[in-house]
Amino acid sequence: MAGVDHLASERSKARFDVGEMKIVWAGSRHTFEVSDRISRLVASDPVFRKDNRAMLGRKELFKNTLRKASHAWKRILELRLSEEEASRLRFFVDEPAFTDLHWGMFVPAIKGQGTDEQQQKWLPLAYKMQIIGCYAQTELGHGSNVQGLETTATFDPQTDEFIIHSPTLTSSKWWPGGLGKVSTHAVVYARLITDGKDYGVNGFIVQLRSLDDHLPLPGITIGDIGMKFGNGAYNSMDNGVLKFDHVRIPRGQMLMRVSQVTREGKFVQSDVPRQLVYGTMVYVRQTIVADASCALSRAVCIATRYSAVRRQFGSNNDGVETQVIDYKTQQSRLFPLLASAYAFRFVGEWLKWLYTDVTQRLSANDFSTLPEAHACTAGLKSLTTSATADGIEACRKLCGGHGYLCSSGLPELFAVYVPACTYEGDNVVLLLQVARFLMKTVSQLGSGKKPVGTTAYMGRVEQLMQSRCDVQRAEDWLKPSVILEAFEARSARMSVACAQNLAKFENQEEGFAELSATLAEAAVAHCQLIVVSKFIEKLQQDIPGKGVKEQLEILCNIYALFLLHNHLGDFLSTGSITSKQGSLANDQLRSLYSQARPNAVALVDAFNYTDHYLGSVLGRYDGNVYPKLYEEAWKDPLNDSVVPDGYHEYIRPLLKQQLHNARL
Amino acid sequence: MAGVDHLASERSKARFDVGEMKIVWAGSRHTFEVSDRISRLVASDPVFRKDNRAMLGRKELFKNTLRKASHAWKRILELRLSEEEASRLRFFVDEPAFTDLHWGMFVPAIKGQGTDEQQQKWLPLAYKMQIIGCYAQTELGHGSNVQGLETTATFDPQTDEFIIHSPTLTSSKWWPGGLGKVSTHAVVYARLITDGKDYGVNGFIVQLRSLDDHLPLPGITIGDIGMKFGNGAYNSMDNGVLKFDHVRIPRGQMLMRVSQVTREGKFVQSDVPRQLVYGTMVYVRQTIVADASCALSRAVCIATRYSAVRRQFGSNNDGVETQVIDYKTQQSRLFPLLASAYAFRFVGEWLKWLYTDVTQRLSANDFSTLPEAHACTAGLKSLTTSATADGIEACRKLCGGHGYLCSSGLPELFAVYVPACTYEGDNVVLLLQVARFLMKTVSQLGSGKKPVGTTAYMGRVEQLMQSRCDVQRAEDWLKPSVILEAFEARSARMSVACAQNLAKFENQEEGFAELSATLAEAAVAHCQLIVVSKFIEKLQQDIPGKGVKEQLEILCNIYALFLLHNHLGDFLSTGSITSKQGSLANDQLRSLYSQARPNAVALVDAFNYTDHYLGSVLGRYDGNVYPKLYEEAWKDPLNDSVVPDGYHEYIRPLLKQQLHNARL
Ligand SMILES: Cc1cc2nc3c(=O)[nH]c(=O)nc-3n(C[C@H](O)[C@H](O)[C@H](O)COP(=O)(O)OP(=O)(O)OC[C@H]3O[C@@H](n4cnc5c(N)ncnc54)[C@H](O)[C@@H]3O)c2cc1C
Ligand SMILES: Cc1cc2nc3c(=O)[nH]c(=O)nc-3n(C[C@H](O)[C@H](O)[C@H](O)COP(=O)(O)OP(=O)(O)OC[C@H]3O[C@@H](n4cnc5c(N)ncnc54)[C@H](O)[C@@H]3O)c2cc1C
Ligand SMILES: [Ca+2]
Repeated sequence: MAGVDHLASERSKARFDVGEMKIVWAGSRHTFEVSDRISRLVASDPVFRKDNRAMLGRKELFKNTLRKASHAWKRILELRLSEEEASRLRFFVDEPAFTDLHWGMFVPAIKGQGTDEQQQKWLPLAYKMQIIGCYAQTELGHGSNVQGLETTATFDPQTDEFIIHSPTLTSSKWWPGGLGKVSTHAVVYARLITDGKDYGVNGFIVQLRSLDDHLPLPGITIGDIGMKFGNGAYNSMDNGVLKFDHVRIPRGQMLMRVSQVTREGKFVQSDVPRQLVYGTMVYVRQTIVADASCALSRAVCIATRYSAVRRQFGSNNDGVETQVIDYKTQQSRLFPLLASAYAFRFVGEWLKWLYTDVTQRLSANDFSTLPEAHACTAGLKSLTTSATADGIEACRKLCGGHGYLCSSGLPELFAVYVPACTYEGDNVVLLLQVARFLMKTVSQLGSGKKPVGTTAYMGRVEQLMQSRCDVQRAEDWLKPSVILEAFEARSARMSVACAQNLAKFENQEEGFAELSATLAEAAVAHCQLIVVSKFIEKLQQDIPGKGVKEQLEILCNIYALFLLHNHLGDFLSTGSITSKQGSLANDQLRSLYSQARPNAVALVDAFNYTDHYLGSVLGRYDGNVYPKLYEEAWKDPLNDSVVPDGYHEYIRPLLKQQLHNARL
Repeated sequence: MAGVDHLASERSKARFDVGEMKIVWAGSRHTFEVSDRISRLVASDPVFRKDNRAMLGRKELFKNTLRKASHAWKRILELRLSEEEASRLRFFVDEPAFTDLHWGMFVPAIKGQGTDEQQQKWLPLAYKMQIIGCYAQTELGHGSNVQGLETTATFDPQTDEFIIHSPTLTSSKWWPGGLGKVSTHAVVYARLITDGKDYGVNGFIVQLRSLDDHLPLPGITIGDIGMKFGNGAYNSMDNGVLKFDHVRIPRGQMLMRVSQVTREGKFVQSDVPRQLVYGTMVYVRQTIVADASCALSRAVCIATRYSAVRRQFGSNNDGVETQVIDYKTQQSRLFPLLASAYAFRFVGEWLKWLYTDVTQRLSANDFSTLPEAHACTAGLKSLTTSATADGIEACRKLCGGHGYLCSSGLPELFAVYVPACTYEGDNVVLLLQVARFLMKTVSQLGSGKKPVGTTAYMGRVEQLMQSRCDVQRAEDWLKPSVILEAFEARSARMSVACAQNLAKFENQEEGFAELSATLAEAAVAHCQLIVVSKFIEKLQQDIPGKGVKEQLEILCNIYALFLLHNHLGDFLSTGSITSKQGSLANDQLRSLYSQARPNAVALVDAFNYTDHYLGSVLGRYDGNVYPKLYEEAWKDPLNDSVVPDGYHEYIRPLLKQQLHNARL
């Protein structure tokens, strides 16, 4: 059977150039080539094997992660990989590890909040991994409410030091990744107290462990916070707990780019604008949106290939059963997720551009677009991670019973992905921030202040309140302008309705609290519009390759009309479309599913994932599912012996008992 | 701190008699008392501890399950528990085990499909657990499509035996619980072949393992199919793989109640109606609906208590932060799930009655209600399990970051629960069965055949196609008749629209396939109506206890109006209500949330769950969350040493390296 491609006939059906689509997916030929090369490198290295992950106990799992991380670093140095290549390598190793926080949070925090001298001192050490750092913000008692953190950093002018202290149990740092077992240093967020006054939360570089023997320094208690969701999943990460008992650090280890404490203990704000932090947030959340498209596309790739392999019921003339991908219910659950994966990819790409744009403006002291960029990234983080988490689980269900096996890869993908809905801002809290921004935008419409960027359409609010959808036939729904108008009308009208209802309250804060669930829905409508409009913008570009653009148009329409169907209540209740038009959209959607069907397998091939990265027997490139499922089963430790451990103590006595007093 | 009830002030807010509500939840005073007693018994027995479950490797976990099962049996015998008590005991042990399948599927299969003699032979052995059985239906290649099973049972008239054989890899039995390591016997479903003819799938009792040494009998290959979703979760179960190589069993081990094979090899149908199987299905699915209310209520109990303990942002006058349960977004996510738990409880109770009713009719040879009862249970199984799976995960997210820890209990609850969406009928496949039944019902409306039971409202279809919702003020939505009419109109109109669209197709099967996604939505609408109407019927009964009925009315309205809000598109597009009415429903919903708020903690106390059964630090009865979270963390094996295993090999060399050739 080796070498047989069970999906060959599916691949031959594709009506577009898969090679060109791979470039579009990757973002550029260069990115494609780097990813392709590095993913193969990882896949072929036995140290990076991960098929045994679900069976390992916590300690073995963790040790194996350390091994992989150290091997990855070795390879990065040996092969003299560029920063881009190194980051791809860590990505394809595909296992949460302390390095994620070191590179993804510790280094950026110092870059963003450290002075030039601080950067010169700490960054070279971090770049060479001579110190390993984590990001210690969240506490047992406070996550979302960062301003409520309780850890204190009290300046002692006598010694020119800060005293870092955990005054309560709930002030224990709790959750930071890499903290529990590995990090030697942390950026610790604590309330700055000097001159007897509390200046709120600031960041401090604190050494946690000795560089000689790795023991926690005096006054520092560190541990791992215990098992998390899933078998392997995020348990390869040492999310940690940290308590300080009056730990002293030099004054110079407060991150002083934005505010400083002088030798005398005076608190001083620098002239660097505080909004700079938003720049970092835009950056981090942009990477989260990119990750969402990766995780979702991976799940979709598995479910699509397996749906083409799996046959159940029915029967063609040749007596073979129907591929489950041919069922319209399967298509209506799967293809919108396929379309979402592409949609999130493109909006992620656009966010990368936005970050560059914001950064350039910041360095030119232009803060005008920052609030909008901030709201937009917060909303997109929330929207894409929620949809991805739900989408992965939907893909698992699409695989029937076999999706419940770890060998399908889907349980672990779900478990490792879901915290993205919580970290870097709880998704509901983020939506409320977006809603707040929308209400501000609406309230300023009269004042002549023109809304910018993704809220520009609000400037046409009067028109959008009255516009009527022109759809008369199902095909009319294929026009980008029609779709855009419907989504704009829905979002604008929901925001305006919220603003009107808010106005009825005497106290605006009370009103906001009372209406918050509806406000969150308005925020979702706004964010969905952004994703749809960025997909449409993408298609206005030149896209080479036979049939590539046509496929993307189909996916864009599926994404938009699926949202419309799923949120029909919004569109109808705001009068943005009529019932008849909603029903035509649904007809069009069915026809789009039929168009997507022959291209589905090729559309997931375009993600260019190796079998190693996919990590799924059901999603194998060659579709050789059943023999491999069967093979995998025998690797379970329970199969080490035919008669299980415990038989003599617990089963045999059951079977051999003499029942004298049973009532059963 | 011991003994302090951190939720005491919440409990004192309740405006109803919690003790009486416990009786309502349990179904009767008797059931309450049994559950209460047995759950305490389990909670106080150290063998049944489960707090270490997430940390165990597969083998340890499994052995521990064997230990619990054998101990449970010992206790059942020692205490001379009744069947009801024994089943509650297994329930509160709260760990999937071979006994679930032995009692839940093996025994019922023999009861339902065995002749009287077969029952007399096998049941006493099974009752005493002198044999342990499982239910071996699903194969690697076939689950949903039972008629497509490939295992063969060929009659050999020479020896008066059946030869059980697995002709292909995909014919391997795959998934049966209890099969992999424990069961000595199985009811195996196989194609009956006699006289050279294939008579389709029948059940056979097959011995799998020697009763002396537990080794598989000759020709039989058995193993475990490997790790499943979650750490502990369903991995305590030995779902298995099974291959037969021409295994011979006596003819008498074919389950012969419905059809027989004679000594000569002739296939004979008995006069027992084949519909009998539906009776068993109604029974099994009724237990699944009951389980849904248990799992959902458990998650809701955890999320509600923790939402009352957790404070984040804001600040009352006393400087204390706001309890997150006071946020309207939190309420709008949590309270509908609380209401759903109660709704599923009552519909489950009603299904129990339905099963009795069907059984009585069957014994009187009345099959008239069977198709309706079958469709109704299939639909309710689908609806409640899907909502419960999603609801558990929603509860996990409601707990923010801490919900991601296994010590919250929620990850394991999700992982162990989700397969309920797949086993006993994939939820989408079940909805399509319901849809088929609805279409048949609609098509027969003209013929004078009166729809019965849960489809009786279809008999008023003409009125429902024209009815207009009378709501003018938000309070109007509190009237049961108004709610019922809106749900009936929506469901009837969706079914009729489907039927009309189907009629446009020449080939009905093709039409059904093409429209299946919309048909599934119509099925959901019908099933939601059932749940709403059974909740309303429950409230028409006499319900004693101060304020108890009032609370249930609030929950019933929350359930209905939440569904209405969530499926607003259905209600508007069918013209069952107007946009204005939809918006009034949402206003009413907000006010209902405020009414539920002070009673929330007491409403989950009414489930009467022990801390052992809940298995959650966040859901502790006393609300003493933070110290216990902190305590739990240190139990993780990673905390056995301060410096982790692997430090010397993998971390120290990193920190101490001399970088000569790094480009980074
Ligand atoms: C896997 C993982 C890794 C992490 N890594 C790190 C790390 O490296 N470093 C670090 O510092 N932290 C880390 N965290 C912590 C993470 O940032 C927090 O969990 C997150 O910010 C959410 O905060 P919380 O847990 O306090 O949730 P809470 O705020 O307690 O949320 C509980 C509930 O309250 C609701 N809620 C809260 N406030 C409001 C409001 N104002 N209005 C309406 N509803 C509200 C939420 O929506 C939620 O439903 C990690 C967390 C996880 C799960
Ligand atoms: C934890 C667990 C325990 C189990 N225990 C047992 C047991 O004890 N004994 C036993 O015999 N089995 C058991 N099973 C197997 C279980 O019964 C099957 O997995 C279940 O019947 C679903 O079938 P499937 O896996 O073949 O799904 P499939 O039918 O392959 O489903 C795959 C996809 O195809 C879709 N699909 C299939 N047919 C259609 C159709 N006609 N129209 C539209 N869509 C369709 C489904 O909706 C799904 O999205 C267990 C399974 C699990 C997960
Ligand atoms: Ca128009």
